[in-house]
Amino acid sequence: MATYQAPTREIGFVLNDVLGVGRLAKDIPAFAEATPDMLLGLVDEAAKLIEGQIAPTNHVGDAQGCKIKDGNVTVPEGFAQAYKMYSEAGWMSLCNTTEYDGQGLPYTLAKVVEEMLASANVAFSLYPGLTIGCFEAIYANATDQIKQTYLPKLSTGQWSGTMCITESHAGSDVGAAKTKATPNGDGSYSIEGGKIFITSGEHTMTENIIHFVLARLPDSPPGVRGLSTFVVPKFIPKADGTPGERNKLHAANIEHKMGINGSCTCVMQFDGAQGWMVGERDTGIQNMFVMMNLARILVGFQGLGQCELATQNAIRYAIDRKQGKAFNGKPEIIEHPDVRRMLLQMKATTEGARVLGYETAMYVDLSHHHPDAAVREVAQDWVELNTPLVKAFCTDSAVELGSLAIQVYGGHGFITEHGVEQIARDSKILCLYEGTNGIQAMDLVRRKLMMHNGRLPQRFFAAVRKELNADAPLGWITRPLGRAVDELESATQFLIESFKTSPDTAGFAAVDYQRAFCLTYLGWNWLRMVKAAASHPDEGFRKAKHATAEFFIGRMLPQVHALLGTVRAPTESLVELDAANF
Amino acid sequence: MATYQAPTREIGFVLNDVLGVGRLAKDIPAFAEATPDMLLGLVDEAAKLIEGQIAPTNHVGDAQGCKIKDGNVTVPEGFAQAYKMYSEAGWMSLCNTTEYDGQGLPYTLAKVVEEMLASANVAFSLYPGLTIGCFEAIYANATDQIKQTYLPKLSTGQWSGTMCITESHAGSDVGAAKTKATPNGDGSYSIEGGKIFITSGEHTMTENIIHFVLARLPDSPPGVRGLSTFVVPKFIPKADGTPGERNKLHAANIEHKMGINGSCTCVMQFDGAQGWMVGERDTGIQNMFVMMNLARILVGFQGLGQCELATQNAIRYAIDRKQGKAFNGKPEIIEHPDVRRMLLQMKATTEGARVLGYETAMYVDLSHHHPDAAVREVAQDWVELNTPLVKAFCTDSAVELGSLAIQVYGGHGFITEHGVEQIARDSKILCLYEGTNGIQAMDLVRRKLMMHNGRLPQRFFAAVRKELNADAPLGWITRPLGRAVDELESATQFLIESFKTSPDTAGFAAVDYQRAFCLTYLGWNWLRMVKAAASHPDEGFRKAKHATAEFFIGRMLPQVHALLGTVRAPTESLVELDAANF
Repeated sequence: MATYQAPTREIGFVLNDVLGVGRLAKDIPAFAEATPDMLLGLVDEAAKLIEGQIAPTNHVGDAQGCKIKDGNVTVPEGFAQAYKMYSEAGWMSLCNTTEYDGQGLPYTLAKVVEEMLASANVAFSLYPGLTIGCFEAIYANATDQIKQTYLPKLSTGQWSGTMCITESHAGSDVGAAKTKATPNGDGSYSIEGGKIFITSGEHTMTENIIHFVLARLPDSPPGVRGLSTFVVPKFIPKADGTPGERNKLHAANIEHKMGINGSCTCVMQFDGAQGWMVGERDTGIQNMFVMMNLARILVGFQGLGQCELATQNAIRYAIDRKQGKAFNGKPEIIEHPDVRRMLLQMKATTEGARVLGYETAMYVDLSHHHPDAAVREVAQDWVELNTPLVKAFCTDSAVELGSLAIQVYGGHGFITEHGVEQIARDSKILCLYEGTNGIQAMDLVRRKLMMHNGRLPQRFFAAVRKELNADAPLGWITRPLGRAVDELESATQFLIESFKTSPDTAGFAAVDYQRAFCLTYLGWNWLRMVKAAASHPDEGFRKAKHATAEFFIGRMLPQVHALLGTVRAPTESLVELDAANF
Repeated sequence: MATYQAPTREIGFVLNDVLGVGRLAKDIPAFAEATPDMLLGLVDEAAKLIEGQIAPTNHVGDAQGCKIKDGNVTVPEGFAQAYKMYSEAGWMSLCNTTEYDGQGLPYTLAKVVEEMLASANVAFSLYPGLTIGCFEAIYANATDQIKQTYLPKLSTGQWSGTMCITESHAGSDVGAAKTKATPNGDGSYSIEGGKIFITSGEHTMTENIIHFVLARLPDSPPGVRGLSTFVVPKFIPKADGTPGERNKLHAANIEHKMGINGSCTCVMQFDGAQGWMVGERDTGIQNMFVMMNLARILVGFQGLGQCELATQNAIRYAIDRKQGKAFNGKPEIIEHPDVRRMLLQMKATTEGARVLGYETAMYVDLSHHHPDAAVREVAQDWVELNTPLVKAFCTDSAVELGSLAIQVYGGHGFITEHGVEQIARDSKILCLYEGTNGIQAMDLVRRKLMMHNGRLPQRFFAAVRKELNADAPLGWITRPLGRAVDELESATQFLIESFKTSPDTAGFAAVDYQRAFCLTYLGWNWLRMVKAAASHPDEGFRKAKHATAEFFIGRMLPQVHALLGTVRAPTESLVELDAANF
C-alpha cells in the first residue's frame, strides 16, 4: 500500500533557502508573526495529523467509494472522522480572514498544507477544498448579511461548500448554462435546473452544505454575460443561524469514475430551491472567476501532492526491491540505471514543480497584502502568469509520475494493493477539472501573454536572466537555460503577433508552448535550488540536488527546443482537414 | 460507452499499398493462396465477428471482473460464449501449422486479427493469446508425443494455455525462480512451487488448461541456466486424449488490478503436480524465449489495438460534441485547434505504429518461410531489431493515447460509462508484462545494436536512406527525416562504443534512445504512407494522410533530437548518488 511521509525538510528548504519566505513576515504587517519558524512549526504539526489520520484513509476510500441510496450519499469509512479532526484543528481556516473565524495566516502556508493533504488522500482533500473555495467566492462578492450567515460556519468547516457550475451540455462552454433563477419577490430566488460533476454535492459529514450556483435570471441575455451567482443552502439557515428547513434540492445520482472514488461526484437537481444572489446580477462569471483562479492554483497543488506521493513511494520500493544485479553488482533495483532514470525524472519534476507552486502562492500573499501598491501589481502579474502553469504542469506531471511509479514497481505496480496505480487514476481528474489543461494553455496564450502589452512574460524573462549572471561553475546550468529562455522569448513574440492574424496557429501550439514555458521555469528553479543548496549542511542533500539538477538540465530541459519548434510548424492542412476525413 | 469499428480500409492500405503484402503469396510457396484479396476477405470476416460479438463484452468485462471462490474462477458474462465462437470459427489457429489442425496462413494475417481483437476487448484477447503462446512453445521444443497430445486441442482452442514464469521474488529476474521439478522415475516430473501473475491460470471456459511451467531440477545450477520447461495440464490427458484425473495444482487467488479486469490473473500453486519436460533440461530459458519474442510482438499488437480504440472513439466524440465556438465559428469540438492537435497526434501515432507492427509481422513470415536463406536472414535481423520497438512503442503509445482520449472527452472522459478511461487502465499492463518497456530498451541497446557487428541498425539506416532519394515535393518530409536518421546513427555508434566502457551511460539513455528510434521509424512510415496515398482514389483519404504526416513531421519527429541529446549527457553524479540520498 502507498504510504506518505511529509517531505518537511524539502518544504523548509524551498520556503526558506530558495524563496525566502521570511519576506512575508518582514514586509507584511498582518503577517508579522508568521515568521519562517512559526510557519515551519505549523507545517510539522499539520504533517503529523495528515500522516497519522488522513493518509490511512486513502486506500480504503478508493476501495469503498461513495454510495447513493434514496438521495442519501455515504462516504467511505473514516472520512467523517478525518474531516472532523482536520476542520476542528483549524487547518481549513488557516488563511481565511480573521473577520470570519479564520486564522489570517499566509495563503502560502495553507497551500503547503494542501499539498500534504493531497498527497495523503486527494479524494478526501476535495471536501475541505471546495468548502474553502465556497468561502472565498462568498467572501469576495456577498452582502454582509450573507457573509455573517455563512462564512463563520464555512471557515470552521462546520458547514461544507460546493461549486455548481457544469451542466451536461455546458462543460468548458460555461455560458451555455440553462439553470434558471426566478425572483421570489422577497429578495430570494427560486433555482431550477440540473448540474453535473458536483464535488461534495451531498453527504452527511457536515450539518449543512452550501451550494454556490451559477444560474440565469429570466430576463438575462444568453451566454456568459447573463449568468448570476447564488448561495443555495441544503438546509435554510434559521434566524439563530442554525440549519432549518430542507431546501428543494437533492443529489439525483453519483458518478462512477476512474479515480478519486472517495470523493462523491454528484448530479444535483434544483427543484425550485431557495437561493440568494451573491454579487451583482449578470456578473456571475466574474464572481466565479475570483474563486476559479484560486481553485486552479489549488488543483496545481493537488497535482504536486500526487507527484510527491508517486515519487517517494517509487523511491522506497526501488530501495527495498531486489531483482538481479546492476552493473555495479548491487541487487536493489535503484542501482539499475533505467530505474534511477525514472526516479530522477520524478524527483526533478516534483522538486522543481514545488518551487513553482510555492513561489506562486507567495505571490498570491504579496498581491493581496503587501503595503506597496507597486509590489502588489508585480505580484499580481506573476499570479496571473503562473496560474495556468501551476495548474497544467503539476497535474500533467502527476499523471506522468503516477505512470512512472507503476513502471518502477513493474508488474506489481498494476496490482491494486500496492497503491501506486491509484495515483495514476486519481490524478487524471486534475488535468480536467477547473478548466482542462488545454484551456489553461489557451488562457496562457490568448490572455496572459497579451495582458499589459506582454508585460507578464517579460517579467519572467528578466527574472531568469538576472539569475543567469551566475558564477562560472554553474555554466552547465546557465548556458542551456539561457538558450531556453532566448528561444522561449522568440516563440512568445511570434505567438503574440501570429495570434492576431492566425489564431489557429497559436491554438495548435498552445499546449506545447505551455509545457516549454514550464520546463524553462523549472530550469530556473533548479538553478536557484543548486545555489541555495550550496550552503546546506548535509552533504548527501547537496549531492542529491546536484545530481537531480544535472538530470533535469541534461535530460529534460532539452525538450524545450522540440516543443517550441512546433510553434512555427505549418497548420494550413491541419485546419483545413474536414472532420469527416479524420 | 466506447465502441469499435474495425479500420479495414486503413488495414488494406497498409498491407497492400504501403507494404506490398502480395509478396507473401508470390515468394512463399506455402502461402500461394494467401493473396491480398484472400487476406483482406478474411480480415473483413474477422472484423464482423469481432465488432459484433467481442466488442460488446468489453465494458461488462471491466465492470464485472473475475471472481474466485474455493479455487474456482468465474469470468465475466459473455466471455465463455465469445471464446467458443472465436475459437470454433478458427481465428485462433490462423497461422498455426496445418500439421496440428492449424490453418497455415500467414502470421501477418493472425496479427492483424489480433490487433482487432485487442481493440474490441484486450482483456478477453489474452485467453486466445496465451493459448497460442503455449502452442508455439510446445511446437518449438516438445517431443512428437507431447505435440500430438496437446497441439491439436490448443490449436482449436478446445484447451487453453498459460505461461507460468513469474514468482513473487522473481519478476524481471527470471533466473531467481525456485519452483522445483523432481523426477518421478516414469519420465514425468513432480512440480512444486508458487507462480504469480498467471494470465488465464484458472477458469472453466475450456475443458482443460495447459500450463507451460518454468522450474528447476534438484541438481540444476542456480540462475537462468538451471531452468527447464514443463507442460503441466490441469487435467491429465487419458490414453484416448480426453481430460482425465485432476492434477495437483490450483489457483490460490486472483489479483485485483488497475485494468484488464476481464482477464483472470492468478496466483497458481503447484503441489506436486505431474508434468512432462519440454525440450532439453536446463534449456528452459531458451525455450521460453522462443515464445517470449513472439509474445512481445503480440503485446505490441495489443497496444496497437488499444491505440486504435482510443483514437477512433476520440474522433467520434469530437465530431459529435458541441461546446462553444471554434475560431472558424463551428461548434463541434473537433474544430478547436487544441482538440484537433490531440486527434492528429493520436492518428499520427496509431497509423504510424500500424506500419511498424505489420512490417514486423511480415518479416516474421519471411524469416520463417521464405525459400531463400539470404532473405530469411535479412528478415530475421528485422524481426530482432523491431521486436523491442513494436513492444515498447505501441504500448507506451496506448497509455498516452488512452490519456489523450480522456482529455478529448473532458470531464466526461473520467466517468466510467464513457469507456475511454478503461483504455488508459487496460493499456498500462502492456508496458509491464513480457518484459517492461525499460527491459525492451536494454534488449535494444545491449543486444540488438551489438548483434553481428551492428548489422541490424545499419539495415534500418540504409533502408530509410534509400527511401530518401525522393522527389523534391516531399522534401518537407525527407529533409527532417534525413537529419533524424543521421543523428540516430551517430547516437547508435556512440552507444555501441560507450557500452563497452561505461554500461551505465547506455543504461541511462536506453529508453530515450528507444523512443527516438521508434519516432524515426515512424517518420519513415509516414514518408511511405504519403507516397502510397498519392495514387489513392479518395481525395479525403489523401488529404488526411497529408495533414497527419505534416503533423507528425512538424510536431512529433523533432522530439528525436531532444531524446538523442540525452545519450551523451553526463551520468557520473547520477550513478554515484547513494540510494539513501534519493
